[in-house]
Amino acid sequence: MADASDPLVVFMPSGKRGRVPAGTSVLSAARRLGVDLDSVCGGRGICSRCQVQPGTGSFPKLGLTVAPDALSKFNAVEQRYDDKRGLKAGRRLGCQACVQGDVVLDVPPESQVHRQVVRKAASGRSIVMDPATRLHFVTVEEPDMDAPSGDLERFRAALAEQWDLTGLGMPLPLLRRLQPVLRAGKWQVTAAINHDAGQVTALWPGLREEAPLGLAIDLGSTTIAAHLCDLGTGEVRASGGVMNPQIRFGEDLMSRVSYSMMNPDGAAEMNAAVRDALNALAVEMAAEAGVATEDVVEAVIVCNPVMHHLLLGVDPVELGQAPFALATSDALRLDAAELGLAALSPGASAYILPCIAGHVGADAAAVALSEAPDQAEAMTLVVDVGTNAEILLGNKERLLACSSPTGPAFEGAQISSGQRAAAGAIERVEIDPETKEPRFRVIGSDLWSDDPAFDAVPTGICGSGIIEAVAEMRLAGILDPSGLIGSAAQVGTERCTAEGRTNAYLLWEGDDRRITVTQNDIRAIQLAKSALYAGARLLMDEAGVDTVDRVILAGAFGAHISPRHAMVLGMIPDADLAHVTSAGNAAGHGARMALCSRASRTHIEGLVRRIEKIETAVAPRFQEHFVAANAIPHATDPFPHLGPLPVVGFNTSGEGRVRRRRR
Amino acid sequence: MADASDPLVVFMPSGKRGRVPAGTSVLSAARRLGVDLDSVCGGRGICSRCQVQPGTGSFPKLGLTVAPDALSKFNAVEQRYDDKRGLKAGRRLGCQACVQGDVVLDVPPESQVHRQVVRKAASGRSIVMDPATRLHFVTVEEPDMDAPSGDLERFRAALAEQWDLTGLGMPLPLLRRLQPVLRAGKWQVTAAINHDAGQVTALWPGLREEAPLGLAIDLGSTTIAAHLCDLGTGEVRASGGVMNPQIRFGEDLMSRVSYSMMNPDGAAEMNAAVRDALNALAVEMAAEAGVATEDVVEAVIVCNPVMHHLLLGVDPVELGQAPFALATSDALRLDAAELGLAALSPGASAYILPCIAGHVGADAAAVALSEAPDQAEAMTLVVDVGTNAEILLGNKERLLACSSPTGPAFEGAQISSGQRAAAGAIERVEIDPETKEPRFRVIGSDLWSDDPAFDAVPTGICGSGIIEAVAEMRLAGILDPSGLIGSAAQVGTERCTAEGRTNAYLLWEGDDRRITVTQNDIRAIQLAKSALYAGARLLMDEAGVDTVDRVILAGAFGAHISPRHAMVLGMIPDADLAHVTSAGNAAGHGARMALCSRASRTHIEGLVRRIEKIETAVAPRFQEHFVAANAIPHATDPFPHLGPLPVVGFNTSGEGRVRRRRR
Repeated sequence: MADASDPLVVFMPSGKRGRVPAGTSVLSAARRLGVDLDSVCGGRGICSRCQVQPGTGSFPKLGLTVAPDALSKFNAVEQRYDDKRGLKAGRRLGCQACVQGDVVLDVPPESQVHRQVVRKAASGRSIVMDPATRLHFVTVEEPDMDAPSGDLERFRAALAEQWDLTGLGMPLPLLRRLQPVLRAGKWQVTAAINHDAGQVTALWPGLREEAPLGLAIDLGSTTIAAHLCDLGTGEVRASGGVMNPQIRFGEDLMSRVSYSMMNPDGAAEMNAAVRDALNALAVEMAAEAGVATEDVVEAVIVCNPVMHHLLLGVDPVELGQAPFALATSDALRLDAAELGLAALSPGASAYILPCIAGHVGADAAAVALSEAPDQAEAMTLVVDVGTNAEILLGNKERLLACSSPTGPAFEGAQISSGQRAAAGAIERVEIDPETKEPRFRVIGSDLWSDDPAFDAVPTGICGSGIIEAVAEMRLAGILDPSGLIGSAAQVGTERCTAEGRTNAYLLWEGDDRRITVTQNDIRAIQLAKSALYAGARLLMDEAGVDTVDRVILAGAFGAHISPRHAMVLGMIPDADLAHVTSAGNAAGHGARMALCSRASRTHIEGLVRRIEKIETAVAPRFQEHFVAANAIPHATDPFPHLGPLPVVGFNTSGEGRVRRRRR
Repeated sequence: MADASDPLVVFMPSGKRGRVPAGTSVLSAARRLGVDLDSVCGGRGICSRCQVQPGTGSFPKLGLTVAPDALSKFNAVEQRYDDKRGLKAGRRLGCQACVQGDVVLDVPPESQVHRQVVRKAASGRSIVMDPATRLHFVTVEEPDMDAPSGDLERFRAALAEQWDLTGLGMPLPLLRRLQPVLRAGKWQVTAAINHDAGQVTALWPGLREEAPLGLAIDLGSTTIAAHLCDLGTGEVRASGGVMNPQIRFGEDLMSRVSYSMMNPDGAAEMNAAVRDALNALAVEMAAEAGVATEDVVEAVIVCNPVMHHLLLGVDPVELGQAPFALATSDALRLDAAELGLAALSPGASAYILPCIAGHVGADAAAVALSEAPDQAEAMTLVVDVGTNAEILLGNKERLLACSSPTGPAFEGAQISSGQRAAAGAIERVEIDPETKEPRFRVIGSDLWSDDPAFDAVPTGICGSGIIEAVAEMRLAGILDPSGLIGSAAQVGTERCTAEGRTNAYLLWEGDDRRITVTQNDIRAIQLAKSALYAGARLLMDEAGVDTVDRVILAGAFGAHISPRHAMVLGMIPDADLAHVTSAGNAAGHGARMALCSRASRTHIEGLVRRIEKIETAVAPRFQEHFVAANAIPHATDPFPHLGPLPVVGFNTSGEGRVRRRRR
């Protein structure tokens, strides 16, 4: 134990301080004082991860003066390291330099395990690195015929002796590599150890300092997106996405559930399809980053409950009917091999975030992790819009969640001229309130359609385009609050044309194609937005609030929605538009957080248990809210932040609002 | 806590006694007193596993009298059980009957988990049942939309609440079955839990009382033998065997190692072959026993190190060269699915016994477990004869092990008329010392060949046959101590015929086939038996003894060897023939012990660590012992228990003993 005459050591930037007996290595001092100082080689002076920068002279604020001999002399091990690999001026190897007097030691960011990764997007939260996977260099005893024991047992003994690590699992596929790796490394190897899973996940001959990689996967019904991350720095080394090949079994989730019900091997087929896609994506992203797939030692996966079950190979049939029982809801720690992720390291681990409820999956949990409404003072509404909308509402007091069946209209499906968000799709729309003339932008061109240089040919209208078009029609007085499109006479423009008993609005006309917004399109959008709003309103009831302070639009789609247009449409409740923001791919970011930080895993596992789950399918007020939300923006709820909207009414026949009631 | 006025309960046959508060159920009393009383349903009165038989009247030896109302009245639950399934007269359900006064309770064998299974063979050891797998009936809460949670989480909560079982794993393939089983059982299911692996291994809807099954597998290089065992009673429900399909990659172990070295996918191919064979064997045996393969929840596997590695999919190349390093030596607990044993329950566990050394495998460990030389006072030699002989020597003080490369001669290979032990093979031989005329028996016939009714046609000679033939030739003076066959003139029989410069002995002659024992056959047997003897002698040196008290011949082959002939040959050291016994398939029996008893697993894991391993390949005295053992029975070691052997010598040219030295 240290006493008062021992040298005082202060580590910066943490400010952690304490006395250690003279002769203690800086690395030992750091461990004793709980200072975050990395080491891969375990103190052998062959990795440079424990580098520190000693201060010199007087530190009045810290109340000490550092003498020139406060640390032991630069020794032969450091000299060898400096000769071979170069050490920055003034830097010392923490495992070699020993404390001899009072000293101030700066731990540079690259020597810290728990460094902070700042997210670029303004709305985002930073990640404090706290990776489950760490590298451990070990020297293993050679086999001895006179005292035979397995290579695995000697490897384990080395981990116990050199790193005090015991009870670790070794997946069978990795055990198959152990003998050649030990021999290639001449009985020195670096092991990636997942301390969350308690497993050895990869092995390299000799010393490997370069951090291994992890995949953060957002497994969506339509697209699978992934980030390949450096598990040391948190840096994204490659990002990519592929279409979910399960689309061939059904466009939306319920049709996939049906496929599974109708076909005995349906779940297994869809399972195989997604496994293949994940492996192909891993291979592609490793190639893009110029790394070996075998250096990918972890995968974190977020997805909705149906995708979750199909990934596990569990028949999702129970998710298609009340009471929507999940096979398992807790976070899962598996071998990646069990999930068929054969492209990664043979010992790789997989972590799947917990599901919140039968309709609110691990993707919603990831959004909660990323956007952290549970840490906000403000009453925060988070909506992740897709075929199902996942909705979170709350603040640090309590957090509620539900899912609402918006259907695919927001993704451009069920819209007469709808298409996926791809080149040629109209994505932005403005309509002049006076002339009722539209202008628009299409994906693939930076110009508005009224620019003389505009020469793109629109092919359809995507999700964000239809939202803007409908909202602009309402703002321009082409659409009344009940959702009826006026006739040419009522509105005063020839762009309104009769189609049977209803009207349509012409956005664009080419030689062989007309892009219009039809009355049916409006109805489809009304159904979708009513569902979304009703879900949010149900949570607001439950939380006892009539307004929210902040709205966060999550999801790739959310990133393209104009907050004002979404509010005009009544997709989201009234709020100060300055507090309606887009969070981009929040689920993907949440997956990345869980990949880089064990604390994030612990946090989300606890939070999901605390979240209050509301099942919209059985909530009596949902239908009532749904009907009231049919109007644009709303039949009864005020939208003071929008200001006055045109007062028009095109209903001459009783059609319109009544239609929904007839169902 | 109980006090002195509480009723006294005495359980028989254990004699465990103690006081429990009046009103305590018999099952609770048993648990409190550490009495072995089974229960599958956990005290719901629906299984009958906790049945007891209360005594009545006076028990002077126990110092108590049982009053008629010592137990509570036969209650409605017991009545219902009795009506539905019948309860033997006087029997009570331990979970229903409550202690009200001093009582003596007899626990019948079928209510005990740890009942004893007596092995039939005289040399064998009995098994005390202590199975890793136990059945647990649970009632699981139904899913609730308002408080959503996974079926797995509610199943786990039920195990924790109803059985105090926590932290159990659920293999993914079994998780895939969970939802349908829970619904089929109306939220009541019986789980097989492997308490050694800490895993749920099978699930059945409703109550299942019938014990599940386990496979004890002896995975040999040539044959794979298995017992399908009832995990409640230990009873063998089916036994069977198949040829090891890896034979097509190489007859013996070293040729399989070579195949793996020469072919990049060699180990994987051989792995696939053995997996297929194991699955086929499991299916066949389940069919024979009339049970579902899915009710097989555990497999215990013993095998030599090369088979061990090939089963794991580990390249065995290191086992082919010094220092013969095992990839892993400790006992392995795996999911059976990881080993590709897909025919069993989707959650089945596998346990592989520890390997002793690079040449002394889990099969030798199983022999040690079965024959228990470590528990003997007598200095015991155990030899398991195969292509490699595994040899154990010791007693309760210490135990030594080695392996010796006998080659395949003892299995009839490399013998001019050799064949596998199959119908038509000569398996027993006697030669009249006066007339030098032989008689023999062949597999498939109960008659000796000199019986007038004998009409079998021999096709060759198997391992036990050649041993008897050579030993009988030595006893009849046809063979001299150096291993030379005498000429017709030297021996005085026309059955000795010249073949080139050496002689052969004619056993049988048919129309188109002659079965002879040639000089080369003698040399092959000499090499094999010298290796075996030298290994045993090396261990005797190490143990500091010149004689052994007991010899146990293990292995299927060992069961067919005549101890006297083996000793005449000098395969084994001199010993009292009454103490030379055959243990049959001791490795298979050891596997069955480990299957039925967790204590056996603990014991063998500890014992293997204590065994002193001797590597014959590098022992300087091995070669010396080998050369001395070339003579029949031995050049220098005395064999007093054999009595005098014919003093003959046919060496006129210096051939014979010298030949080995020339190598």
